[in-house]
Amino acid sequence: MILETVSENRAHRGTQGVYSHSSQATGTGMTFSVFVPPHNEGAIMPVLWYLSGLTCTHANVTEKGEYRAACAEHGVIFVAPDTSPRGEDVPDAADEYDFGKGAGFYVDATREPWSRHYRMRSYIESELPDLLAANFPVDMTRQAITGHSMGGHGALTIGLRNPGRFRSVSAFAPIVAPSEVPWGEKALGRYLGDNRARWREYDAVALIEDGARLPELLVDQGTADNFLEEQLQTHRLARACEMAGIGATIRMQEGYDHSYYFIASFMADHVRWHATRLKG
Amino acid sequence: MILETVSENRAHRGTQGVYSHSSQATGTGMTFSVFVPPHNEGAIMPVLWYLSGLTCTHANVTEKGEYRAACAEHGVIFVAPDTSPRGEDVPDAADEYDFGKGAGFYVDATREPWSRHYRMRSYIESELPDLLAANFPVDMTRQAITGHSMGGHGALTIGLRNPGRFRSVSAFAPIVAPSEVPWGEKALGRYLGDNRARWREYDAVALIEDGARLPELLVDQGTADNFLEEQLQTHRLARACEMAGIGATIRMQEGYDHSYYFIASFMADHVRWHATRLKG
Repeated sequence: MILETVSENRAHRGTQGVYSHSSQATGTGMTFSVFVPPHNEGAIMPVLWYLSGLTCTHANVTEKGEYRAACAEHGVIFVAPDTSPRGEDVPDAADEYDFGKGAGFYVDATREPWSRHYRMRSYIESELPDLLAANFPVDMTRQAITGHSMGGHGALTIGLRNPGRFRSVSAFAPIVAPSEVPWGEKALGRYLGDNRARWREYDAVALIEDGARLPELLVDQGTADNFLEEQLQTHRLARACEMAGIGATIRMQEGYDHSYYFIASFMADHVRWHATRLKG
Repeated sequence: MILETVSENRAHRGTQGVYSHSSQATGTGMTFSVFVPPHNEGAIMPVLWYLSGLTCTHANVTEKGEYRAACAEHGVIFVAPDTSPRGEDVPDAADEYDFGKGAGFYVDATREPWSRHYRMRSYIESELPDLLAANFPVDMTRQAITGHSMGGHGALTIGLRNPGRFRSVSAFAPIVAPSEVPWGEKALGRYLGDNRARWREYDAVALIEDGARLPELLVDQGTADNFLEEQLQTHRLARACEMAGIGATIRMQEGYDHSYYFIASFMADHVRWHATRLKG
């Protein structure tokens, strides 16, 4: 697997890189960013995955996420993938921000014309970890995952489906029950078809209902988030965790919205929380 | 003076706002951003001005500057103005990133067709401070100023020309002697005309040579900055400060470039440095 360096900038005593490669999973070129904190030669470090929300690429969190100071302090590698396959050959839904390019929903699509390229589950769960392990000083026994909105949905579902892989899972304003809200019904219906039983492995609340478990969970959710009531419905996750006995810390943050101003406000806190669990 | 709120987002326990108004100085609409940290009702706080570099608006540092955590911690208001007049009526130099819109160089232009709108000196030195004092909980007896590149030039020259106004002055990769480098020769020549004696009040090194003083100075400059040798020439400032007896801390930062990754890496440090001097 050949990695091309798009850019590397020195930042917070480490290196903020952007890389591209030809993806087997999506059949397209893919771009992602990696921050490698300062470290001794030969050292390997734990990694925090960050999955982005609708319309985003790797660039949004890389520019606005304010994670580097905390990652440098705690010695954590930070990886930010794209949110969908890209390129002129990739089918898209013109003028729909919540489906197609920028809206891969971290699924392996099974319906035409999406199934050829929209394979973000395989990309994030299998291909990118291998690429990361082969090219960066990562200790793959110490992984954590987080994400925002659609990416919070990605972090929760990937964490729940892969017990033992991540030492810790958190999310910012996640979509917690896509099967029950408009964004998710639209995306899962078109990527996977009408059989809702097939959606459950891509729905955090349904996965928990079906027996998947996490040792604990950290979620921040703004109370002034325009999407809270219709699309995010944090209370569904709180209830599912309570019934399943999952120790979930769900913090309703007064006055915060859905933007990167919200994410950046609590990013250092999440990095610190994960770093504690990634130690040793 | 009427202020229009473009946006306000809760961030780091404070409020990140973007505002627009009709400017007397430039004869155009102008936009700027203000971060107000958490504070007790009725409290007034010190302010740190940040002047941006070529091609930038208020948005670059607002999104990528990573100043809010430090400003919230230290109780400092952060103001980021635009870098030039804006609007369809404003003359511009098409395809020139280093002159015209986005490149006001913090001068009051005296040459046609620039003299009508390109009055960023008056805007930053007089109009915007009045607007700020009237609309935000600012203690105008406690001001500090910094900036990047062209904005570092702005911070240094405005600081040097207004003794006593700022308790502290710092800069990131500033243009220190515009009269002696291509960016500055082009801009000052076209905004002010060929008489180089008129340029000296807009040249930090010349101002120091002519007797202007600052109690001290903090400058960070990346060694991998592509503009260092031709446009920035930090050594000229170091020499001028040495000869004038100005206590300048000029830190050459190994491997850092001219980007916001560099600025964000040292922003918290600058905020802390200013905050110490803005106390009480």
